[in-house]
Amino acid sequence: MNYKMILYIMGQILKGVGLFMLLPIVVGFIYNEEHVVLSFGIPFAIVMIIAFVFTIKKPEDNSVFSMEGFVSVALSWITMSVIGAVPFIISGEIPNFADALFETVSGFTTTGATILDDVEAMSKSCLFWRAFTHWIGGMGILMFVLAIMSSNDARTMHMMRAECAGPKAGKLVSKSKFSARILYGIYISLTVLEMLLLLAGGMPLYDAVIHACSSAGTGGFSIWGDSIAHYNSVYIEMVIAVFIILFGVNFNLYYYLLIKKFSLVFRNEEARTYFGIIITSTIIITLNTVKVFGNTAEALRHSFFMVASTITSAGFATTDTAQFPVFSQTLLTLLMFVGSCAGSTGGGMKVSRILILFKTGIKELKYIVNPRAVATVKMDGKPVENDVVRGVSSYFILFMMILAFSLLLITLDNYSIEESASAVITCMNNIGFGVGRFGTAGNLGGLSGFSKIVLSFDMLIGRLEIYPLIMLFAVKKH
Amino acid sequence: MNYKMILYIMGQILKGVGLFMLLPIVVGFIYNEEHVVLSFGIPFAIVMIIAFVFTIKKPEDNSVFSMEGFVSVALSWITMSVIGAVPFIISGEIPNFADALFETVSGFTTTGATILDDVEAMSKSCLFWRAFTHWIGGMGILMFVLAIMSSNDARTMHMMRAECAGPKAGKLVSKSKFSARILYGIYISLTVLEMLLLLAGGMPLYDAVIHACSSAGTGGFSIWGDSIAHYNSVYIEMVIAVFIILFGVNFNLYYYLLIKKFSLVFRNEEARTYFGIIITSTIIITLNTVKVFGNTAEALRHSFFMVASTITSAGFATTDTAQFPVFSQTLLTLLMFVGSCAGSTGGGMKVSRILILFKTGIKELKYIVNPRAVATVKMDGKPVENDVVRGVSSYFILFMMILAFSLLLITLDNYSIEESASAVITCMNNIGFGVGRFGTAGNLGGLSGFSKIVLSFDMLIGRLEIYPLIMLFAVKKH
Repeated sequence: MNYKMILYIMGQILKGVGLFMLLPIVVGFIYNEEHVVLSFGIPFAIVMIIAFVFTIKKPEDNSVFSMEGFVSVALSWITMSVIGAVPFIISGEIPNFADALFETVSGFTTTGATILDDVEAMSKSCLFWRAFTHWIGGMGILMFVLAIMSSNDARTMHMMRAECAGPKAGKLVSKSKFSARILYGIYISLTVLEMLLLLAGGMPLYDAVIHACSSAGTGGFSIWGDSIAHYNSVYIEMVIAVFIILFGVNFNLYYYLLIKKFSLVFRNEEARTYFGIIITSTIIITLNTVKVFGNTAEALRHSFFMVASTITSAGFATTDTAQFPVFSQTLLTLLMFVGSCAGSTGGGMKVSRILILFKTGIKELKYIVNPRAVATVKMDGKPVENDVVRGVSSYFILFMMILAFSLLLITLDNYSIEESASAVITCMNNIGFGVGRFGTAGNLGGLSGFSKIVLSFDMLIGRLEIYPLIMLFAVKKH
Repeated sequence: MNYKMILYIMGQILKGVGLFMLLPIVVGFIYNEEHVVLSFGIPFAIVMIIAFVFTIKKPEDNSVFSMEGFVSVALSWITMSVIGAVPFIISGEIPNFADALFETVSGFTTTGATILDDVEAMSKSCLFWRAFTHWIGGMGILMFVLAIMSSNDARTMHMMRAECAGPKAGKLVSKSKFSARILYGIYISLTVLEMLLLLAGGMPLYDAVIHACSSAGTGGFSIWGDSIAHYNSVYIEMVIAVFIILFGVNFNLYYYLLIKKFSLVFRNEEARTYFGIIITSTIIITLNTVKVFGNTAEALRHSFFMVASTITSAGFATTDTAQFPVFSQTLLTLLMFVGSCAGSTGGGMKVSRILILFKTGIKELKYIVNPRAVATVKMDGKPVENDVVRGVSSYFILFMMILAFSLLLITLDNYSIEESASAVITCMNNIGFGVGRFGTAGNLGGLSGFSKIVLSFDMLIGRLEIYPLIMLFAVKKH
């Protein structure tokens, strides 16, 4: 293990986080919130000093393998979550450490689950930071650092793999520095476009920035207790729904669109399945909720928004899903596991993994009938490598085991099994709302500090896709 | 597909079922229940006529492969469930078809979930048949037929594989006819021994027969609304708990004991894990429920019984688990998935599968750290074949997919997600009780006919371990 290099990479990442902390300070100055000088100034100073110490000298041995990639990404995410929580504590807006950490991890991991009873009581700078952590975490902080620093590409692939979502890290263009720049370019463009469209719908500038950042990361933090329902505007709901769906698509496809490789886009099986699931689920839930809303139009409006909000893992709400029939609530819960496309900012297990799992099941049935017939799992018409198929199965196994173990720990708080399970599911899949007291109308503030730490871990497990965090525990043995 | 041979095998199996139906008729005569002449006489006549027609001529082509094995086992189980339900309908004790089918499938699959509000109102012959279906289903009806008929061994292996529980069908001795006889011999001996011990504890003969049959199949049907709690006897509880645990052990181990191969028994990793889980879970749940029961002895008594009843999939109860803290209820629910050992009469996914899944997860972590290192999954110190490892992963994937899909269908009844999920989990793992209105103090009678059919399917899926039933749908394509 190349510890010096791990510290060096962490230093680079922390520099990025530090720079991002200047933005809420600007917001604070605009709105005359004096507390930002201390609440953001102190963590800014700390993170910059640490970053400076870590990067003062580039190690001579700059080799980075899987293990170093995983460990530096895991440590960076934990460090930035701890530092990102400091403003909430110093400002006194979330005085408890476990609470502040949970809220920050929920931000960076783009979960959007909150422990706040009254989100509207927060200062504008803190609310901005909260939503902005979604934006940072959505594309990944490491990606940002890659985009700005010149780097050794063979080395950075190991790190991209650790932060990137999906069964395999796609190499967009030959040099990952350029990949990162292109991806960030697309990300910024889409965010700005959404912001402009929200402004056009009459949303105030501050609100538009917040909700564009929060959508871009498919996070789900809003500035209102009743989330998007606050605006009661079909236009705003549709803009947000469409954009979170777009942010849930593999960003490589936008790159293909840019270079006019349209056939690669339309042939993409994952994206087609993703849109297919959204349409089918919307129709089913609309039919199931017509009685609740009294008419089809209202049912369609809320069903579409909630399906989009769930599958993309955004976790915004336009209605209290506790009013939905149990069938629709269950379907939404299952969509949480599906999640969005690999290589997007969305959470969940990813559509491609679910597709591969489904095809693995079918393949097994064929094998049982005729063990001598060679059946292969195909995606986009091409056979998937055995390593990937096996990796996806193992991912699913590990995911369900961590889910079961976390659930056990959470139930020590004696919430119902249903509520406890929904908390774990929503955190591991980075959605933001569960059922019952943890539903769209509630929050997770009632949980014990211990449960909040467990769920913070689960959110990181979900966002970094298991391995980096587990590697952290494996390190000592090597 | 050799359809003639499938019908022939079905005929043989139905003959076995028919013979077994003579027993409740005997019980009816003993207790002067005249309805048995019609309620059991009619289905006995039907099943014997069908069996006679199907077996009138042995097909010249008696080749049987995987597909024929799976299909004949699946069709036999469905047919015997339908015929086994007839006595309940004719006697008028369960007049509704979906209800009667559910109860019978619950019997044969050794689930023990009931739709009856007042089980004590039933006639003694029907109660006997209900518990006896557990005994028949526990070891498998096909095994019984194999034990009594002389047969081609290469052929029967395909069928044993279809009915036998676990990641791979162990070939006990070289000829499966003898295997089946040995297994049935052990099964009968253990059942009789339990019955004698229950009698020794002061249980009436009828009750002892019922509970011995019900324990042997790890089924869980009792003749009392409050199950084993009715006797309020620590002795009876301990006899039943110990015996269901014994029936949850791989029967091959008893054979090894008989032929004095003790080292094979003590080295068996699955059995050691099984006992380890029982002991650990009992200790944890005892500690967690001390407050509920007021003292450690009572907590230990009920915790041990409920852990045994859950992991073996028996589903008997000595207490209402709804009184348990949520943590203990959740742990019991997780134990339902674990289940007992492969090659036992118990349900669940089987300890060996869980072990292999766990080791597959660990192996993947090792692979992620170092893709070039060759890691293998080992059981009993020997490497497990890749086909088996892959098969177990696929089994888990298919199991969870069927679970999710069934859950969606069940939620149309608008029971809570928690209750609906518990119904599916308890049926797929062949346990018998869930939570809430489906808990140890409740029953599944409130569900719609549609849900009862879905759950009947799930019970068969669980008992026959997915493949035979799925193959039934695949047949048309071949």
